[in-house]
Amino acid sequence: MRIKSSTHAIVQMAVRAKVASRGLSLLPTSAKNAALHAMAKALTQEKSYLMKENQKDLQAARKQDYPQALIDRLTLNSKRIDEMAQCLRDTAKLKDPVGEALNTWKRPNGLVIKKVRVPFGVVGIIYESRPNVTSDCIGLCLKSGNAVILKGGKEAFYSNRAIFFVLKNVLKHTQMPHEAIQLVASTDRQAVNILLRQAQYVDLIVPRGGEELIRFVAKYSSIPVVKHYKGVCHTYVSDKADINMARSICFNAKVQRPGVCNAMETMLVNRNIAKRFLPVMIDDFHKAGVEIRGCPKTLRVAGSGIKLATEKDWREEYLDLILSVKVVDSLKEAIEHINTYGSHHSDAIVTKDNKEAEQFLKAVDSACLYANASTRFTDGYQFGFGAEVGISTDKLHARGPMGLEELTTYKYQVYGKGQIRK
Amino acid sequence: MRIKSSTHAIVQMAVRAKVASRGLSLLPTSAKNAALHAMAKALTQEKSYLMKENQKDLQAARKQDYPQALIDRLTLNSKRIDEMAQCLRDTAKLKDPVGEALNTWKRPNGLVIKKVRVPFGVVGIIYESRPNVTSDCIGLCLKSGNAVILKGGKEAFYSNRAIFFVLKNVLKHTQMPHEAIQLVASTDRQAVNILLRQAQYVDLIVPRGGEELIRFVAKYSSIPVVKHYKGVCHTYVSDKADINMARSICFNAKVQRPGVCNAMETMLVNRNIAKRFLPVMIDDFHKAGVEIRGCPKTLRVAGSGIKLATEKDWREEYLDLILSVKVVDSLKEAIEHINTYGSHHSDAIVTKDNKEAEQFLKAVDSACLYANASTRFTDGYQFGFGAEVGISTDKLHARGPMGLEELTTYKYQVYGKGQIRK
Repeated sequence: MRIKSSTHAIVQMAVRAKVASRGLSLLPTSAKNAALHAMAKALTQEKSYLMKENQKDLQAARKQDYPQALIDRLTLNSKRIDEMAQCLRDTAKLKDPVGEALNTWKRPNGLVIKKVRVPFGVVGIIYESRPNVTSDCIGLCLKSGNAVILKGGKEAFYSNRAIFFVLKNVLKHTQMPHEAIQLVASTDRQAVNILLRQAQYVDLIVPRGGEELIRFVAKYSSIPVVKHYKGVCHTYVSDKADINMARSICFNAKVQRPGVCNAMETMLVNRNIAKRFLPVMIDDFHKAGVEIRGCPKTLRVAGSGIKLATEKDWREEYLDLILSVKVVDSLKEAIEHINTYGSHHSDAIVTKDNKEAEQFLKAVDSACLYANASTRFTDGYQFGFGAEVGISTDKLHARGPMGLEELTTYKYQVYGKGQIRK
Repeated sequence: MRIKSSTHAIVQMAVRAKVASRGLSLLPTSAKNAALHAMAKALTQEKSYLMKENQKDLQAARKQDYPQALIDRLTLNSKRIDEMAQCLRDTAKLKDPVGEALNTWKRPNGLVIKKVRVPFGVVGIIYESRPNVTSDCIGLCLKSGNAVILKGGKEAFYSNRAIFFVLKNVLKHTQMPHEAIQLVASTDRQAVNILLRQAQYVDLIVPRGGEELIRFVAKYSSIPVVKHYKGVCHTYVSDKADINMARSICFNAKVQRPGVCNAMETMLVNRNIAKRFLPVMIDDFHKAGVEIRGCPKTLRVAGSGIKLATEKDWREEYLDLILSVKVVDSLKEAIEHINTYGSHHSDAIVTKDNKEAEQFLKAVDSACLYANASTRFTDGYQFGFGAEVGISTDKLHARGPMGLEELTTYKYQVYGKGQIRK
């Protein structure tokens, strides 16, 4: 069952997925949910096989002296397999977006036009993270009526393949077309290159991983890609902020989980509040081990132990306990800084002035804008979407967290009684 | 005021448009409408100037022996300028999509999430058709809060430039940022190449014109493109069709305006109705001067004066009085033919059986599906959108006719009271 990464094999895989997607798009919700439950059951039943295959990846990782954090992310244990199964069951519970009438209206000539949500067809997911992405994404794609082609990272090769085999075997006993899930079981990037050129059969590509992978995918894909490159997220502390609230929000945005895309990378502080706010805030950060890189004004106000920020810092996604800090003269300067240096991901203002908050939320050109809350909430689960395939900073199609609805497009169904164009 | 097409000039134009888009996105509807009305007035006041400039294009076109149809499309006369002005006034009447709350919900932690429609920012429109596109697209982009960069075809160089100058001069006397509209006043394709690489400043590209232009734009753009390459539209006449309705719909779809993307190019006929339907239908077509290219079965049933279709015909967009005809065994075969050979634009079924109609509308993977109506209705005006920037066969973002709403994206505005992520 090992699939070669030759051009022919990838093209055939895409063709089979496309054919399967036609039947899948017409399946009732109950059939899709039954398949998800059967898949969840199989994962828990095949725990020992999954953990045995996972050992092969772990051994290779240890041999190559991968960092402990990566080895931890790679590990499949009983609890994690249970969580993967639960995610499939949770996805089964989510509302099926397919077939939803987004709008219906009647034209003067009697034509009834219905705008209806439909699956994309075939979704390609290229990722390099944890093995659970394999089953999570299979669940989301199938529930939204899409066939899926997966290409995981080489570190998780055996684990991904094992999860895939278990889930694919289940499909035989369901109404789901057996070819609706496909895995590019190859470790070379050439396979990705071939996949990215199958625009005739693949409708959407979602890359998940580091900026380098995403740039590679965006550059070589002839298929539409929904993505974000990075998250350079800001919090602007207005001079009308509640200082305690600002301390709590900024601390949370930076420290709670610094390695993720919705963590704060730059803090902007109004000059009128800088002297009262910065010393206490930076003290909090220092205690948590955060390295501060400040503008000259920041250094003047709270100089001890602060590095001078360079122009490069304002565009940097540290993904670490590092924070750049800038004192700004006004709301306007804060907005301009974010629109110039930001990544259009998630940005927050802390202020007690509703008018100012509204101005910030309107004028900043980002996917998610927060008034008086942490940027860490940009996440499909936190938004109430139940699950997410990723977060988009694109403006086309989906922006922000992407759940089941974002895995669908729409079509117009028009009902006539013989109308012709005059 | 002639703008050079050097890289620097195009980049500067994109930067100015981006800066202008920030202010424009915050303008109230009344200010945008006032500008559109002032622009409409200016067009009618400057008729003689516009017609004088238009003469330069017409003279060049006659010198190069352009076909009469092209010269006709190029011509600006008093009536056409009035229509352009009226289009701007009609656009002013349309509902402003900017700021519309698409959804608002509250999370258990008290966060209020608002999904709000916002402009893209800067839209680039690359076209090769009639000069009225210049003012129509300026109106649509400004009303939807977007700055616009226009690049028209070389045949209409002087006309486009004149319309642009008149409209740009008006902006000085309105609240609209003066740099919100830009024209690449150059006739070489190199300028397009440079524009297509300004992803940092331009948010969306809409190409309008022939398939060759659109393929060029899609190939070289690093900016997201919404487009359709061609319209290979089908009508399937079921054995459960009302024969008179089928004759009327098929005739309209092919003959009323054969040169447009929503005209029918292939007619599929169920074999059980072929003998009753095809002879009369093909007789109608022959009387209207339509050349028929049929499958072997079509030739057997209504052979006189019919050419044998080749495999190539099933993928052909004739844009002319030519029609390919195929007899199929079943609804299933019709659906498969359309999904295989079609362009995912507009396809119709004629049938009295609602269940069959519903099956067709669900299973055909196209932007617009019709039950018992002509495919010629795929059009922003006919759908009731008031106007259109184009028609998309893409699945990302916009599908089918694109009006004002399709010139917007969305952002999430999240209102908190100090919430942090646990």
